[in-house]
Amino acid sequence: MKSGMLGIGGVVIAAVMATSAIGDGHADKAIAAEVKARQSQMTLYAFNLGLLGGMAKGEIDYDASSASAAASNLAALAKLDQSRLWPQGSDSDALGLDTTKAAPAIWMAGSTAGEKGKALAMAAVALEDAAGGGLESLRGAMGAVGKSCGACHESYRLK
Amino acid sequence: MKSGMLGIGGVVIAAVMATSAIGDGHADKAIAAEVKARQSQMTLYAFNLGLLGGMAKGEIDYDASSASAAASNLAALAKLDQSRLWPQGSDSDALGLDTTKAAPAIWMAGSTAGEKGKALAMAAVALEDAAGGGLESLRGAMGAVGKSCGACHESYRLK
Repeated sequence: MKSGMLGIGGVVIAAVMATSAIGDGHADKAIAAEVKARQSQMTLYAFNLGLLGGMAKGEIDYDASSASAAASNLAALAKLDQSRLWPQGSDSDALGLDTTKAAPAIWMAGSTAGEKGKALAMAAVALEDAAGGGLESLRGAMGAVGKSCGACHESYRLK
Repeated sequence: MKSGMLGIGGVVIAAVMATSAIGDGHADKAIAAEVKARQSQMTLYAFNLGLLGGMAKGEIDYDASSASAAASNLAALAKLDQSRLWPQGSDSDALGLDTTKAAPAIWMAGSTAGEKGKALAMAAVALEDAAGGGLESLRGAMGAVGKSCGACHESYRLK
C-alpha cells in the first residue's frame, strides 16, 4: 500500500495511499493510532526541552547530570525511526484541526519536512554532547535545537 | 526536593516529596506534565509493540526491516532516562483513576517497579537483536517482552 517514501529525521515517512484511509474503519483506527503516537513523540520532545530550556533561561538551576540526561533523551527520541508516524491521509484537512495540526503541505511536492526533521536530529546530537559541559555550553547548543523546532512548526504546524 | 531515588529501567525515579504536589499550582502543573510524558512513553511502547505483536501473531506480514526498526525504537525508548516521569505524588490516590492508573504501591517500600522496568529494557534489547532475523527469531524474543510488560501492569497498573 506504500506509494512513496519521504525522508524525515534521518528516517522515512511511509506515504500510505490516501484512499486506504477513507471509508475503511480499520485504516481509520490505524491512522488514529499513528497520530496519537506522533503526538506522544512531540510530547516527549517538549518534556525534555522544557527542562533544558528552563535551565538555559535561568529559570531552573543548571545541573549537569539532569541536563545531560534530558539532552540524551531528546537525541534518542529524534533518532527514532518515525516512518510509521506520518502516513499520508493524516493531515489536518483529512482529520480536522481538532485532531491534528499537521499541514497538508508536509506531504506535498517540495516539502522540506524531512530535511527539517534531520536538522532537529543533528542539533539534538550536538546538544547531547554539550549539555553536560556547563551552562554556557548548554546555551550554545540550544539555539540550533530551538531553530529546528521553530522552522518546522512555522511551516508545517497549523494554528 | 528529592527525598529518594528508585531504580527503573536502568535509570532512576526521582521521588519528589509528596507535599510539594499539594496546594501548589506550579507543582500540580509539573506533575500533570510528568504524567502526560509517561503516558506518551507508554503510547510509544504500545505503538511499536503493536506492529511486532501483529507480526508475531501472523496478523501482519513479517518484514525484517520494519520489525527491526520497531524493535530498535522499543529498545531506545526503554533505555531513556525516566527519572522525571515518576515523581512521588503522581499515583492514582493522589490524582484520581481518571488521570492515572499508576498504583501507589509503585512508590512504597518493597516496590519492584524498578526491577520490572529493567527487565523490559533487557528484553527489548534482546528483541532488537532478534527481530530482523526472521519470524521465528522475532517470536522467540517477544515472550520476554510481553512478560515484562504484563508483570509490571499486573502489579502496578490499576483497572
